[in-house]
Amino acid sequence: MSQLLDNVCSELQRLPGVGKRTALRLAMHILKMEPEVANSLASSISRFRNEIRHCSCCNNLSDSELCPICSDTQRDRSTVCVVEQVQDLMSIENTGQYRGLYHVLGGVISPMQGIGPSDLKIDLLADRLLTGEVKEVIIAISTSVEGETTLFYLLNRLKAYPDVKVSTIARGIGFGDELEYVDELTITHALKNRREVVKG
Amino acid sequence: MSQLLDNVCSELQRLPGVGKRTALRLAMHILKMEPEVANSLASSISRFRNEIRHCSCCNNLSDSELCPICSDTQRDRSTVCVVEQVQDLMSIENTGQYRGLYHVLGGVISPMQGIGPSDLKIDLLADRLLTGEVKEVIIAISTSVEGETTLFYLLNRLKAYPDVKVSTIARGIGFGDELEYVDELTITHALKNRREVVKG
Repeated sequence: MSQLLDNVCSELQRLPGVGKRTALRLAMHILKMEPEVANSLASSISRFRNEIRHCSCCNNLSDSELCPICSDTQRDRSTVCVVEQVQDLMSIENTGQYRGLYHVLGGVISPMQGIGPSDLKIDLLADRLLTGEVKEVIIAISTSVEGETTLFYLLNRLKAYPDVKVSTIARGIGFGDELEYVDELTITHALKNRREVVKG
Repeated sequence: MSQLLDNVCSELQRLPGVGKRTALRLAMHILKMEPEVANSLASSISRFRNEIRHCSCCNNLSDSELCPICSDTQRDRSTVCVVEQVQDLMSIENTGQYRGLYHVLGGVISPMQGIGPSDLKIDLLADRLLTGEVKEVIIAISTSVEGETTLFYLLNRLKAYPDVKVSTIARGIGFGDELEYVDELTITHALKNRREVVKG
């Protein structure tokens, strides 16, 4: 078999969800691309890996020292939303409803995987609160066991800043979710956090 | 959002089966790779696209003028197995049971997609038969409408070589297939091509 084909197939198999067959299918697709297109795919991968940086303020992915969100003077610098990973930041950004800043932890506390508080950007968050510019921290991390552990740890750390309001995003029934299929814990939360509505 | 991330995501979306979300997941995975690993993935893609060639004899993918199969002196040069695409050749090679040569057509005749006989490597196959070295041509192309059209076209062309035996691979019930779920056409073929077995 061709060494070049062998090579590209085993390299592609490093990607998540790509097995032997998928790798071959991807390689055959790459073969049909114009050479410039394949080269630009290749160079986008190595440029991304070699040149991407983490924002020195919020730990978001960035092309420069500060990410576009942190350097945007139009955004509300008094609110910081704490998320687990960059994908979560992007999900919130996609709503177009949030005008504050972010803080990307880079994971959650997980003793099982050997991830402790010092492996996350928690000190960096604490540093941001020292200036007094931040008035509210919104914690938007997942409700897994690790997420809850991280939440408790954060709440404890944030006690040191009595002037900073702390909130978590609402838990409840998602739009379009059918009650029949929603888990008990979510329903329990949704009932407990019910909102009074104005009659008529 | 980061331009570098944006870029790699839209490039990855050129791959089959990769949408916006998968592209982001792949990008995040690439971010976790060692830089050398990401660079070697990237360079394997562009080297494959830029340096791969087609074997001048059988049209298989090759790193050089002749593919490893055509240049292997241990193989039986009197038998040529005609396949649609390189993946099919690889499936047959994986059985380890075939010692002859191959001929990769590069597709099947498909008037709907504007693919005619001249778009396939059929003339190259005819050229190979002129030397008289080839004694048998095994046609191993799919049983789709396009495959059958290609088969009939090939049989017609091969009439010009009366000394060359032509065969097609057997159609029948695959190992492990349950009769209950096999389509009628396959069962019909399997019945018609039944083989007598020795009793006791």
